[in-house]
Amino acid sequence: MLTLYHSPGSCALASHIALEEAGAEYRVVKVDLGSGAQRQPDYLAINPKGRVPALATEGGILTETPAILAFIAQRFPESRLAPLDDAFAFAEMQAFNAYLCSTVHVAHAHGRRGSRWANEQSSFDDMKRKVPETMGAAMALVEDDMLRGPWIMGDQYTVADPYFYVVSTWLKADGVDIETLPRIADFKRRMEERPSVKKALRWMAEA
Amino acid sequence: MLTLYHSPGSCALASHIALEEAGAEYRVVKVDLGSGAQRQPDYLAINPKGRVPALATEGGILTETPAILAFIAQRFPESRLAPLDDAFAFAEMQAFNAYLCSTVHVAHAHGRRGSRWANEQSSFDDMKRKVPETMGAAMALVEDDMLRGPWIMGDQYTVADPYFYVVSTWLKADGVDIETLPRIADFKRRMEERPSVKKALRWMAEA
Ligand SMILES: N[C@@H](CCC(=O)N[C@@H](CS)C(=O)NCC(=O)O)C(=O)O
Ligand SMILES: N[C@@H](CCC(=O)N[C@@H](CS)C(=O)NCC(=O)O)C(=O)O
Repeated sequence: MLTLYHSPGSCALASHIALEEAGAEYRVVKVDLGSGAQRQPDYLAINPKGRVPALATEGGILTETPAILAFIAQRFPESRLAPLDDAFAFAEMQAFNAYLCSTVHVAHAHGRRGSRWANEQSSFDDMKRKVPETMGAAMALVEDDMLRGPWIMGDQYTVADPYFYVVSTWLKADGVDIETLPRIADFKRRMEERPSVKKALRWMAEA
Repeated sequence: MLTLYHSPGSCALASHIALEEAGAEYRVVKVDLGSGAQRQPDYLAINPKGRVPALATEGGILTETPAILAFIAQRFPESRLAPLDDAFAFAEMQAFNAYLCSTVHVAHAHGRRGSRWANEQSSFDDMKRKVPETMGAAMALVEDDMLRGPWIMGDQYTVADPYFYVVSTWLKADGVDIETLPRIADFKRRMEERPSVKKALRWMAEA
């Protein structure tokens, strides 16, 4: 049995959708980021980085969305959530996920978590003002170069899809108008028709 | 034949060391970040993100350090640069690399590339002042929790080692005193005895 540590509205949604798509047996434990539960000793014993997601497995605990997603794909190969037999195609998927993790998620976080990287309110305001530009530039790259269609990696639905889905749900708050990005808007609509996504969103609404 | 796009002093050093450890046939092409070569049309045709590293392979171009490193490990399995037969152990290595990519490299970049995330000089100065604290906290976590010893993942040398080696070379400039981190200092010294590291550093010195 796998246990996902998740917080409504967080990037842990990607791992939740992937577990659901994989047909895994799992449970979800809520970590209330709003009240700072991620910095309490009991959660730091699970993930010393004080972030979600974390996935508790039989072998131990995993963190970091790209690593968790690839693990789910490899652990449930019959669900075909990654190109497991082709090192180059697998690396392309990992590159997409690493870009979301290192550049896109980080750009988004500058709008709300500026205190990770600076101390002054004026810096936080400055960072916040730039989010529409940085997220807009990243989304233009996804729209024009990266999203192959119908899914991120092309015909095969992979774990890159739930990860990018999470990013697509942030765009409005980040000042990026999704209707100017028709391929991304279409992708988001198609994701929201999937039972896995509906189920994961329902958990968030009720948690 | 693989081609690595690299710039002296950049994180592409990790991929260079890994190629050398793998016994790969490869060549290195210098991208001069100082003169802005990464934003010229010929390089943007290789990597539209305008960053190094990029690795040109028979199958196409790969970007993002964690993806390139895992690809090298999978493409040269006899070099045993990753635990390829154990999905959990592989994911643990990927989690370490994702942490470097999304948190550690990003913290470091705030000292020199603040204009990625803000517009005002006062914000850049504020970010720069915080680097010793953010890098120091990340290094304390590596020293105390993550570095298993003798190598990052324990007894097996993996592609996480060259990646973390690159980070260890940044610490002085980032205001973190490596001598307060004895396990990391020892790791760095042992890495610098490896012929692969010596060769990659020689390329940087001569490029
Ligand atoms: N690189 C990590 C980032 C995880 C992360 O930053 N999660 C956020 C939620 S989206 C978090 O836990 N924030 C809580 C905090 O910063 O205190 C990943 O990709 O999983
Ligand atoms: N997430 C990427 C980051 C690559 C990156 O930021 N590379 C830096 C050098 S360490 C770069 O190319 N900077 C040039 C620039 O920002 O213009 C990776 O891990 O490969």
